[in-house]
Amino acid sequence: MSYLGVGVSPGNVPVHHGSGVKVFERRVRLGELILRCVICILALLASLLIASDTQVKKIFSIQKKAQFTDMKSLVFLVIANGIAAAYSVVHVLRCIVSMVKGSVIFSKPLAWAIFSGDQIMAYLSLAAIASALQGALFAKLGEPTLQWMKVCTMYGKFCNQVGEGLASAVIASLAMVILSAISAFSLFRLYGGNKDKNTARW
Amino acid sequence: MSYLGVGVSPGNVPVHHGSGVKVFERRVRLGELILRCVICILALLASLLIASDTQVKKIFSIQKKAQFTDMKSLVFLVIANGIAAAYSVVHVLRCIVSMVKGSVIFSKPLAWAIFSGDQIMAYLSLAAIASALQGALFAKLGEPTLQWMKVCTMYGKFCNQVGEGLASAVIASLAMVILSAISAFSLFRLYGGNKDKNTARW
Repeated sequence: MSYLGVGVSPGNVPVHHGSGVKVFERRVRLGELILRCVICILALLASLLIASDTQVKKIFSIQKKAQFTDMKSLVFLVIANGIAAAYSVVHVLRCIVSMVKGSVIFSKPLAWAIFSGDQIMAYLSLAAIASALQGALFAKLGEPTLQWMKVCTMYGKFCNQVGEGLASAVIASLAMVILSAISAFSLFRLYGGNKDKNTARW
Repeated sequence: MSYLGVGVSPGNVPVHHGSGVKVFERRVRLGELILRCVICILALLASLLIASDTQVKKIFSIQKKAQFTDMKSLVFLVIANGIAAAYSVVHVLRCIVSMVKGSVIFSKPLAWAIFSGDQIMAYLSLAAIASALQGALFAKLGEPTLQWMKVCTMYGKFCNQVGEGLASAVIASLAMVILSAISAFSLFRLYGGNKDKNTARW
């Protein structure tokens, strides 16, 4: 397990080292669990707030209904946050099982799977929130040079609820960014101990 | 440098291990250098293509000029890609110096700085490209439910050049995502070797 793959035997390990590692592992897993719970709740909240949002306006004799399907970026955001919530539920369960069992991830394929999943979720949710924010800005401020009118002046209540959903999704995205750094740490520290295997694999 | 911080002295290292590590290090640094050059060129190309793009249309007696400042998301993309290109130039120089010197990053503060910078650049460029793509989709397809008209029917040449810029920025973003994984690897593998220090720091 040494950096250069030589000179260590498990018998060398003093007890205080092991307990220090355990405390650290527990903290990392607890942090991961809290973040995944936060993401799950906020992503679900964002999806529900936006997907359930509607407002009907009567303009002369015509009834017009605003809903999230009117803007594709909001549909993308609802879907991305739905996926993030479902993904987080699975990983919350995994975290709880590993905390109860007291096991630590030392399997590279599992660490790679978690790392890849977390990276994809972080980039996906960030892309969704960026495009939705862009759409929301057009709706709020309009784009006079392109003659795109402000729609939030007409649908104030609808826009406010979308805004709350967006705020929730932004915090969930930031939590996903931190989480993807934690899973990168969990994966790549495994490569600190046996450098020669890396050389063969990469 | 062992996983648990005990039992290794540099004197234990056989020559073939050292050369294996060196070959691996060289490959990682070469990959990093190539990716940073690609990002630098493509991000600069994207910025130039979009920033230099203009089209003048005469509608009856009125002259209308389309330029990237008409849409804030394009301004954001030009700025983000400009920053990415400048950031990449600095790191290309750093990579070249470290390759010439033959030095390897074992300093945690430096590895943290590179990791943080690369992460910020990856998320920034992804957010910029997502919001610009959203804006471009509105311009190309319009949003009939919100009465936002297609502007690309009027400014075809302008939209095509923006499209080329966006394609260039998308590839640069993907390269940044891969690069941020490489810098995460470069940082966190340093934590595989001396676990107790982590426990104290985190």
